Amino acid sequence: MSSRLSLDTLNRADPAEFARLIGGVFEHSPWVAEAVAPRRPFATLAALYAALADAARAAPTDQQMALLRAHPDLAGKAARAGAVTDFSKAEQASAGLTHLTDAEFARFETLNADYRAKFGIPFIVCVRRHSKDSILAQFARRLAHAPAQERDAALAEVLLIARLRLAALVEAPDALPVAGRLSTHVLDTMRGRPAAGLAIELAQLSVAGERLPLKAVTTNADGRTDAPLIAGQPLPIGTYELSFHVGRYFATAGVALAVPAFLDIVPIRFAIAEPEGHYHVPLLVTPWSYQTYRGS
Amino acid sequence: MSSRLSLDTLNRADPAEFARLIGGVFEHSPWVAEAVAPRRPFATLAALYAALADAARAAPTDQQMALLRAHPDLAGKAARAGAVTDFSKAEQASAGLTHLTDAEFARFETLNADYRAKFGIPFIVCVRRHSKDSILAQFARRLAHAPAQERDAALAEVLLIARLRLAALVEAPDALPVAGRLSTHVLDTMRGRPAAGLAIELAQLSVAGERLPLKAVTTNADGRTDAPLIAGQPLPIGTYELSFHVGRYFATAGVALAVPAFLDIVPIRFAIAEPEGHYHVPLLVTPWSYQTYRGS
Amino acid sequence: MSSRLSLDTLNRADPAEFARLIGGVFEHSPWVAEAVAPRRPFATLAALYAALADAARAAPTDQQMALLRAHPDLAGKAARAGAVTDFSKAEQASAGLTHLTDAEFARFETLNADYRAKFGIPFIVCVRRHSKDSILAQFARRLAHAPAQERDAALAEVLLIARLRLAALVEAPDALPVAGRLSTHVLDTMRGRPAAGLAIELAQLSVAGERLPLKAVTTNADGRTDAPLIAGQPLPIGTYELSFHVGRYFATAGVALAVPAFLDIVPIRFAIAEPEGHYHVPLLVTPWSYQTYRGS
Amino acid sequence: MSSRLSLDTLNRADPAEFARLIGGVFEHSPWVAEAVAPRRPFATLAALYAALADAARAAPTDQQMALLRAHPDLAGKAARAGAVTDFSKAEQASAGLTHLTDAEFARFETLNADYRAKFGIPFIVCVRRHSKDSILAQFARRLAHAPAQERDAALAEVLLIARLRLAALVEAPDALPVAGRLSTHVLDTMRGRPAAGLAIELAQLSVAGERLPLKAVTTNADGRTDAPLIAGQPLPIGTYELSFHVGRYFATAGVALAVPAFLDIVPIRFAIAEPEGHYHVPLLVTPWSYQTYRGS
Repeated sequence: MSSRLSLDTLNRADPAEFARLIGGVFEHSPWVAEAVAPRRPFATLAALYAALADAARAAPTDQQMALLRAHPDLAGKAARAGAVTDFSKAEQASAGLTHLTDAEFARFETLNADYRAKFGIPFIVCVRRHSKDSILAQFARRLAHAPAQERDAALAEVLLIARLRLAALVEAPDALPVAGRLSTHVLDTMRGRPAAGLAIELAQLSVAGERLPLKAVTTNADGRTDAPLIAGQPLPIGTYELSFHVGRYFATAGVALAVPAFLDIVPIRFAIAEPEGHYHVPLLVTPWSYQTYRGS
Repeated sequence: MSSRLSLDTLNRADPAEFARLIGGVFEHSPWVAEAVAPRRPFATLAALYAALADAARAAPTDQQMALLRAHPDLAGKAARAGAVTDFSKAEQASAGLTHLTDAEFARFETLNADYRAKFGIPFIVCVRRHSKDSILAQFARRLAHAPAQERDAALAEVLLIARLRLAALVEAPDALPVAGRLSTHVLDTMRGRPAAGLAIELAQLSVAGERLPLKAVTTNADGRTDAPLIAGQPLPIGTYELSFHVGRYFATAGVALAVPAFLDIVPIRFAIAEPEGHYHVPLLVTPWSYQTYRGS
Repeated sequence: MSSRLSLDTLNRADPAEFARLIGGVFEHSPWVAEAVAPRRPFATLAALYAALADAARAAPTDQQMALLRAHPDLAGKAARAGAVTDFSKAEQASAGLTHLTDAEFARFETLNADYRAKFGIPFIVCVRRHSKDSILAQFARRLAHAPAQERDAALAEVLLIARLRLAALVEAPDALPVAGRLSTHVLDTMRGRPAAGLAIELAQLSVAGERLPLKAVTTNADGRTDAPLIAGQPLPIGTYELSFHVGRYFATAGVALAVPAFLDIVPIRFAIAEPEGHYHVPLLVTPWSYQTYRGS
Repeated sequence: MSSRLSLDTLNRADPAEFARLIGGVFEHSPWVAEAVAPRRPFATLAALYAALADAARAAPTDQQMALLRAHPDLAGKAARAGAVTDFSKAEQASAGLTHLTDAEFARFETLNADYRAKFGIPFIVCVRRHSKDSILAQFARRLAHAPAQERDAALAEVLLIARLRLAALVEAPDALPVAGRLSTHVLDTMRGRPAAGLAIELAQLSVAGERLPLKAVTTNADGRTDAPLIAGQPLPIGTYELSFHVGRYFATAGVALAVPAFLDIVPIRFAIAEPEGHYHVPLLVTPWSYQTYRGS
């Protein structure tokens, strides 16, 4: 993606240019941008986003329905037919939706079909905020909705997608709250100091028991990682596991351990529920004990 | 196996009967029992075992070598030819050695051959104290021994086997220290009480990443299990994992949790190094934190 | 006090003897025992106590009022005039009420007077279940009661006193639930073993900041104390502090510590709310960290 | 004290002015500054300090002795006679040495006298790095030194004092490592969030059991304190206690607690050994459990 637009550029563009620059934020529905063009200038990106969201929510039902229908099918034919905008392909890839097995694809198609049959719109979800498992959980939950309730849910997802796209598109002094952060910190409570040089792996776990490696790092002198484990993006809802190489850490430090060591690889499994949340998952460890907690 | 003999019976039997009753404790080598028969009566089983061990250790080298050669090959042809005593088949099954894959069997055979070629005796290990992985680790370590050093190591294993067999065979007021214990205890530190009704699974983990389920239990009103997780037998050296169903416990208790819950299944992975040890691995847990340690 | 009576003796005594043996359990009010004599024999002490409690609760108001009036003033003139039964003097001593300073005595007298003026009965509380501070807290809370409400509260206290007296008086297969227990357990999580030989002091803390030493012990090989810190009696409601001599423990063990050590004496302060409760307050400790929790 | 000098000013001053500006850093001994004046300019304050330290350490013994003798007696007559420089009075006040009781003063005087009698110099210690108790501990330890060993110890203290004075006097891009930091962080592990609005008191404890309140703060929204508990100064060696008002925190949050609450005020007692160290002493707490550790 090319470099970002400035809020200033958006404020100063003529209405048609504004609609063109911003319009892709709502899939094939430039009228949303057109509705807010007269409300410029916007002092902050948050204000621009709020105005777009207001315009979408205030639109007549039939216009909202058109907005919803314009959204591509999740992993559906449209996704493979190249009709999806550049935004949508990147988004679906992040949830592993471009890597569906035959069984998964068939399942998604069936669910899409059931959904479309009931609601007359494609199933819309901000995939960057989800894992495959949480999207399937969404399907189940939302298929049970009444139509008006589901229209609101789908619109809410369209707005979440729009917010992410806007954040990627526009550079502004204020940042939209679209990114979460996952970090850790290892304390060697046997020796009262940060555990430096301790290897950690982060993986995502699926309900089916698959393990998807995400990152491998080593702690720095402060027992932390130079960069957060995940930052600058929404944290996909789902289950994760941190594997701390504790045995190797203490062995390298020359600490006498049992053979085999009581603690070798320490797995810490937890779930992320808030994609925009800050999750700090430290480990306090000795060769014979450890604890973890959601910190800050 | 039939019911156990009494120490009294052993003390009062004539020497030939004593040798017959006890002799199987040392594979095809009744001379060990014959050597200690005159030292009866024994006040405790520990004293009887000590006398047998002394006799074995004090025997001339060639007699020790004969004792070692009389032991069956670990998972070798002898194991499949039915020439192994009843004792040995049960023992090898417990380490999964009667369930070897073709690759594993080939590997064991190669190691056995290398070992026999170097030392002229079969590889002997008290399999009840081991997992498949720890036996393989033993092979590697002991293949590097000098012959005299390895004769001592092999004899030590014969004595560990003998001690287990004796404990199974003889009922006495004193118990030989052949059994370890693994237990747990779950404390709900959010509400300051034992976590009752919490489901736990215990599994053994192999180096290759295989998970062998061993037990599934639910905590009682005191947050403990009615019986220890493992007791009355040596704890096989190796890696284990306790899976605590924390999410379900708190959900059942009506505690408001994140969706998905920060903690659902909490895995605690640890290794046992002492088969006769007491391992108490508690969990102190809230919906957002937990700790564990080797307790007592 | 002389050795205890058997339940059997109580069951077989004639009614007058029964009333004489049991009567002192209710201060100067033998009618309670007289009311239950015909209901013998009792299979358990719990059943006997339940019958006595029922008789007291079911009595006409004026008879209950007489029962309440018959109870000695807490630390009042009656306590110093020798008219209080043997039971009451021991009980009051346990809450430090025979050791009142002039100021405290004046305060108690004033509260007693206010109480008596409002309710026409002496202030009754089962002092063995309390500390001086919790008795004062009781005064404040109960002075606010309406008369009928307070009559119930006072009667409840009379029954708690009776239960304790009965437990001290009668030996039976079943024990009345009158005793609590306070215990601890120290785990050295640096070395994965019980902390043996660690000195601990238990003290009671008053609201005014006074520290009353109760016990000094040293942990045994299992990191526990040979006997519970407190057992066989109600645990007085109030604040306590355990002081664990951690610095000395690690220094003795030859662990290199900072000078002065980060942790020397570790104070654990907690309150007991249930005199009949079981409080297990362990310490998991390294030279640089510790944790505690209400366990079981 | 007036505003600080710049390193640039010191570099550009003529030698006499330099000696005058810097000279007070070494009590009545301007020759140290004179010795380093020719080595200017110094690029960093650390380089200036290193040069001054080198000059002091390289000086002939008799000159070092003169430097040591020029230092005021700790809490001695000189301290009360007004002959002490402005620097020394502030320093002694910080260790409570201007607030000595008669007994303490007599003790210090006796120790000073013993020390002077043995070594012929006054007892010198960088008091800002100490508490009263740690100074007394120093006396005991150093009185046992051989003269040459003690001369080194005393000179080391003079250099520590000089470093602190220099840091206070000179503003430079680099900061001398003279300040430590004490901080805390409270996590509510019952609810998985920072404990905001929790009151904390910090006090210094003396060996004699005196408690000197230092600070009272309340945690912010992140469970931390807006400013560190102590910063910008050396942390005096000694024992401290943090009192966390846990009971009030949970009660305010509407959490149902026992009456009285199991945890009300939680005391965390620890010692600081490194005045220039960073001590982070967090508390992870529920109404029924807590832990602390030296973090980072």
